[in-house]
Amino acid sequence: MQVPSPSTREAASMYGTAVAVFLVILVAALQGSAPPKSPFPYRIPLDPEGTLELSWNVSYTQETVYFQLLVRELKAGVLFGMSDRGEMENADLVVLWTDGDSAYFGDAWSDQKGQVHLDSQQDYQLLRAQRTPEGLSLLFKRPFGTCDPEDYVIEDGTVHLVYGILEEPLRALETINTSGLQTGLQRVQLLKPNISIPALPADVRTMEIRAPDVLIPGQVTTYWCHITELPEGFSLHHIVMYEPIVTEGNEALVHHMEVFQCAAEFQSFPQFSGPCDSKMKPERLNYCRHVLAAWALGAKAFYYPEEAGLAFGGPGSSRFLRLEVHYHNPLKIKGRRDSSGIRLYYTATLRRFDAGILELGLVYTPVMAVPPQETAFVLSGYCTDKCTQLALPPSGIHIFASQLHTHLAGRKVVTVLARDGHEMEVVNRDDHYSPHFQEIRMLKKVVSVHPGDVLITSCTYNTEDRKLATVGGFGILEEMCVNYAHYYPRSQLELCKSAVDPGFLQKFFHLVNRFNSEEVCTCPQASVPEQFASVPWNSFSRQVLGALYGFAPISVHCNKSSAVRFQGEWDRQPLPEIISKLEEPSPRCAASRRQSPAGPAVVSIGEGEG
Amino acid sequence: MQVPSPSTREAASMYGTAVAVFLVILVAALQGSAPPKSPFPYRIPLDPEGTLELSWNVSYTQETVYFQLLVRELKAGVLFGMSDRGEMENADLVVLWTDGDSAYFGDAWSDQKGQVHLDSQQDYQLLRAQRTPEGLSLLFKRPFGTCDPEDYVIEDGTVHLVYGILEEPLRALETINTSGLQTGLQRVQLLKPNISIPALPADVRTMEIRAPDVLIPGQVTTYWCHITELPEGFSLHHIVMYEPIVTEGNEALVHHMEVFQCAAEFQSFPQFSGPCDSKMKPERLNYCRHVLAAWALGAKAFYYPEEAGLAFGGPGSSRFLRLEVHYHNPLKIKGRRDSSGIRLYYTATLRRFDAGILELGLVYTPVMAVPPQETAFVLSGYCTDKCTQLALPPSGIHIFASQLHTHLAGRKVVTVLARDGHEMEVVNRDDHYSPHFQEIRMLKKVVSVHPGDVLITSCTYNTEDRKLATVGGFGILEEMCVNYAHYYPRSQLELCKSAVDPGFLQKFFHLVNRFNSEEVCTCPQASVPEQFASVPWNSFSRQVLGALYGFAPISVHCNKSSAVRFQGEWDRQPLPEIISKLEEPSPRCAASRRQSPAGPAVVSIGEGEG
Repeated sequence: MQVPSPSTREAASMYGTAVAVFLVILVAALQGSAPPKSPFPYRIPLDPEGTLELSWNVSYTQETVYFQLLVRELKAGVLFGMSDRGEMENADLVVLWTDGDSAYFGDAWSDQKGQVHLDSQQDYQLLRAQRTPEGLSLLFKRPFGTCDPEDYVIEDGTVHLVYGILEEPLRALETINTSGLQTGLQRVQLLKPNISIPALPADVRTMEIRAPDVLIPGQVTTYWCHITELPEGFSLHHIVMYEPIVTEGNEALVHHMEVFQCAAEFQSFPQFSGPCDSKMKPERLNYCRHVLAAWALGAKAFYYPEEAGLAFGGPGSSRFLRLEVHYHNPLKIKGRRDSSGIRLYYTATLRRFDAGILELGLVYTPVMAVPPQETAFVLSGYCTDKCTQLALPPSGIHIFASQLHTHLAGRKVVTVLARDGHEMEVVNRDDHYSPHFQEIRMLKKVVSVHPGDVLITSCTYNTEDRKLATVGGFGILEEMCVNYAHYYPRSQLELCKSAVDPGFLQKFFHLVNRFNSEEVCTCPQASVPEQFASVPWNSFSRQVLGALYGFAPISVHCNKSSAVRFQGEWDRQPLPEIISKLEEPSPRCAASRRQSPAGPAVVSIGEGEG
Repeated sequence: MQVPSPSTREAASMYGTAVAVFLVILVAALQGSAPPKSPFPYRIPLDPEGTLELSWNVSYTQETVYFQLLVRELKAGVLFGMSDRGEMENADLVVLWTDGDSAYFGDAWSDQKGQVHLDSQQDYQLLRAQRTPEGLSLLFKRPFGTCDPEDYVIEDGTVHLVYGILEEPLRALETINTSGLQTGLQRVQLLKPNISIPALPADVRTMEIRAPDVLIPGQVTTYWCHITELPEGFSLHHIVMYEPIVTEGNEALVHHMEVFQCAAEFQSFPQFSGPCDSKMKPERLNYCRHVLAAWALGAKAFYYPEEAGLAFGGPGSSRFLRLEVHYHNPLKIKGRRDSSGIRLYYTATLRRFDAGILELGLVYTPVMAVPPQETAFVLSGYCTDKCTQLALPPSGIHIFASQLHTHLAGRKVVTVLARDGHEMEVVNRDDHYSPHFQEIRMLKKVVSVHPGDVLITSCTYNTEDRKLATVGGFGILEEMCVNYAHYYPRSQLELCKSAVDPGFLQKFFHLVNRFNSEEVCTCPQASVPEQFASVPWNSFSRQVLGALYGFAPISVHCNKSSAVRFQGEWDRQPLPEIISKLEEPSPRCAASRRQSPAGPAVVSIGEGEG
């Protein structure tokens, strides 16, 4: 099939528009309160070698993302786009390709077999193509939602970016099948919150937590553990900001980093710098789990709200810190040295409020389980009105950031705030959640939680590849459903989670036996994981388990720390009743889409000035 | 808020386009095999007085409906549109309005409070506005699907058309609330199938079945029953076509008509012409239930396929026919006389095949029940592979028309054909089904059913207004789920339906008792309706009942007539296993939508020639 090519006049006029639009962007970017150095404040390498580099910016007023894709070594073209979970099939793509004579840029999509098709509606709009000393730079934009059923909707939370390299000129776009290309994926939060950056205090000081001169192992995945310590007598401070320090040249290798504080009950911790799964790693390092800072690829600096800071130092807290660096090295590059880490910005002039972390979701217990072969099974954990009533200060708390957490089967996570039975707002939602990309995210809007409010955290799991039920627990093949909510002012409430009442779960096993041939042992000596392992999973037992979780009373953990409960009766509590739900977010169609061209654009590549 | 008005030049250019498009339609219409008299073959009155009259035509290639709305007595404007079930809230509207100076035509929508808003995307496109001797005639078009989330998607099956009358000029469109207007609804199948009309045989004869000179009662609803008889010795014929005869002037009153043949076991039936619910109506007329012909408002002639006809007359069949006319008279007009009826076209030269009617869906039994307060509870009835294997001819049968049937809680009905566990095609679907509008519909595509195929008929019920469970049965407050499939060649199979195994339903009642306080009597003397009446309906019992219906074995009725089964074991049959489902129909976005104007059009009303 021949690709229709627009006339030269059309192409010229498009190019004219593009330049005008780009100037508008530049001007708009410069009007921001804190003018960024570049109109594209966010940048990540797409491939392990960094030959494709994506920069982007978000216009919330236009509901549009502006992309700048740098192609360092252009062959015959590139594919770039998004898909649900990073697969190259059913992907929403832009393709730059050449037939040998001309170069084209078009909005395309791949079907479930990876076959590429030109999209009947062109929603990616090329604004500029320019040759620069670094490579070809493509500037284009895409509305968040296009109302084209073939198109991906750009939502809050994780976005799986995909790319592919075209090695040879093509007769036509339709000859591409993504299975034949060099391809890859990169996870990123595209829609960064558009929040104003709080001013730093005058007496701010910095501290670099780095693992110096690490020889990155020549294997795909390495978690590097490094112990460091605060100066002796380091008094109580507030961390007010932190930012990543990534060794130049290693941008594509450093996937995420976290700084943990060790437990105060131990006087000292041994020195260690090595892989976290090393047999040499001292056992005691497992007690360094209190998060001070966390960064993941694509994230910028993390700022605490002006009125709050994270306490560290001083009596009653450990001087020992553990830095964990995740190196992602799919090409198994050897001999690379790295000194990446995190730079903490802290102040001795304590801010008005301490920040705290509240753990929401499910208790780690096998009574919460997901049947095997499910594509989207939902489990919910509740922080009940009774707990928030008892444990939160009268003026409430303010959640400003959130880190979602599941194990390998997690696919979506959402926490919703409900008041008097009505769902009020989303605390954090990630419909393309990946357990491989768990970053602390600033919320677009601070969520205030008052005594009597309910917080419902729901996780969606995929167990298509499993033969037995997946039960809750600590193991990597068991599951969790957690939202670490970062909030202020810090309260005594550290953990507010739930699980189904174990007695009702036993009724479920009895019921399964009544509808099938008595396969589940309901005798006292059977453990819950054993019982789940013997359930015959059919449409009935699956649905009844889901219905049970949506109906049976719950045990609530309303705790000051992981072991100390608030006083009260927390067993066999009624499930919070929800009278009205929030509407599902439905993408708005971009108003601008009528202006988009009907076919691919012929690309005329200008020479850059730089 | 001021409505933006396009410049005169724009309006003029739009008008130019409109005339051109209209000419294209006229030409297209004339190219059809049997050129219709009008480019708008379908016509219905919208309001009881017939002051608004809608004509329309469907272009399947453009996926667009062309509407011609005749407004006989224009006041300050009209609203016309569509909504899910005929409500004026959440409706997709076009509005013709005047501010006293100019007239405007715009695409609008009403929110859940009935407040009217101009649509940001104008998908109704005005093609012509013309003053004719009969009134103002508006010609406009709308794609089936627009991809505008505010817009109604025009689908197969019932469409609820709504209208409203504007009495006074408006400052702005946004001042309209539909609750303050004279409004109404009309149900119709908009997307009439585009099938070629079979030629009638040379020896075709006609017979008019009419209730002559009926004085239409001055009440909203009347079902009129009229007994008529075939001539003595009337031999076996084939009905090949029938069409409505509606007395002129009563087009808005005659809602639907059906002709039934009486039971052959009675030698004669008494004469009667009167309301069907009259106390004077002879009891015996209840035995006149075999459908020969059915028509409803908006429908045109019904043609049998060229190779088939409906047998009537001859030995072994009753000479007596019952005509039923439903008069819908919301204004309670008195004194109107009517002689409407149905004209049968029949031939003595029998066609190759007899047509037959196969009853699909649920057995009329209380074991199939819908909990109260449900908004969309689905029950499914199965015609199993075992039954079709046994009862259908080796070459299969061909379904060419279908009449869907539920009682008052029915909201959707669909029948799907499955083969080897894969859903293959939809036999008939109505996602806006109304129990008040049950017409026989020609299928767009004849569906062939082979031995071993499975037919699944699913009905969606709304019981929001009910306090107790709704059980299956014959009563108007009990429910049915039936598809009368019209097919050829006629086979012995008259009925192929199912219901859940009663033993499994008892397990459900036991289970409910285990999770609640033993409220359901599971003793032998309790009837199923009594048991359902004592179920405590909560999220668990509701979902478990749904899961049971999707899992438990079924009793199959595979019958030659309503009382005579085919030989075989039909109890405790496994539910047909479905490995792959059909995709939900997702509306295609009209490719033409980029051409639509961004705001309302100023209407310049030309004088007609007629």
